[in-house]
Amino acid sequence: MTIRPYDARDWPALWAILQPIFRAGETYPFAPDISEAEAKAAWVSRPLATYVATDEYNGVLGSYYLKPNQPGLGDHVCNCGYGVAEAARGRGVATQLCIHSQAEARRRGFHAMQFNLVVATNEGAVRLWRRLGFEIVGRLPQAFRHRQLGFVDAFVMYKLLA
Amino acid sequence: MTIRPYDARDWPALWAILQPIFRAGETYPFAPDISEAEAKAAWVSRPLATYVATDEYNGVLGSYYLKPNQPGLGDHVCNCGYGVAEAARGRGVATQLCIHSQAEARRRGFHAMQFNLVVATNEGAVRLWRRLGFEIVGRLPQAFRHRQLGFVDAFVMYKLLA
Repeated sequence: MTIRPYDARDWPALWAILQPIFRAGETYPFAPDISEAEAKAAWVSRPLATYVATDEYNGVLGSYYLKPNQPGLGDHVCNCGYGVAEAARGRGVATQLCIHSQAEARRRGFHAMQFNLVVATNEGAVRLWRRLGFEIVGRLPQAFRHRQLGFVDAFVMYKLLA
Repeated sequence: MTIRPYDARDWPALWAILQPIFRAGETYPFAPDISEAEAKAAWVSRPLATYVATDEYNGVLGSYYLKPNQPGLGDHVCNCGYGVAEAARGRGVATQLCIHSQAEARRRGFHAMQFNLVVATNEGAVRLWRRLGFEIVGRLPQAFRHRQLGFVDAFVMYKLLA
């Protein structure tokens, strides 16, 4: 598996990964009916950088974006989002993407990484981020409208990178 | 004191209030050298609504903006920012603005209000938001570069409106 910067030719495969994640409405706050153009803006155009994990057999396996979480005096804390293809689950792709993103964030001078809305029912993600050094620093009551479960809590997770 | 929707003619007075707040770099993450156009976009154009507190003697005394804190499945939680003129401090303007914003948020169907980055050294604001029903739900280590104090912690504060 290689992790490298996103290339415009990755988009069709990346959208095929992200679309079912967003449509499911269980992990990301993006509107489930988000358009392809809006998704591309959110994942590729607006962030500072986007990376993809690939292998030569399956092409794009997953991706993350990296961006400052706040403007100006808060822009030393970054935010990332991760997505992994359904068919590539269980191979440690998310782990590798998160490790890569932390190194990349450090390299770019960020002091910390913050996840603003980790859906509490997304237990696999919470466990993974904790294993990778993130702490739950806050709980937001009913902050996410889960498509299956209705209003559920979300966590703010945070890691100092220094 | 009257609180009413922002009108385009309020901008010069509002900018005279916001500019020293942003330039000080002690409470908002906006870049201290933010341009007038960027400030207007952040306070007036991008939010869902902006309100001003005025009286007939001093004109605009303070203001707040209201917007969804997240897209899609997180857009039932709103976010507000408040600013009060230096000369109008101590008159309860921020209290009245916050009470108004909570009513306005409820009226528009929001379920909760979240402040993402309340600078921990801004003790007056923390005390005020707590008095008005907000809880500190998270602490973000070193998440704010205070212009005088360097890296300081920030709080995530939250209130269910239902």
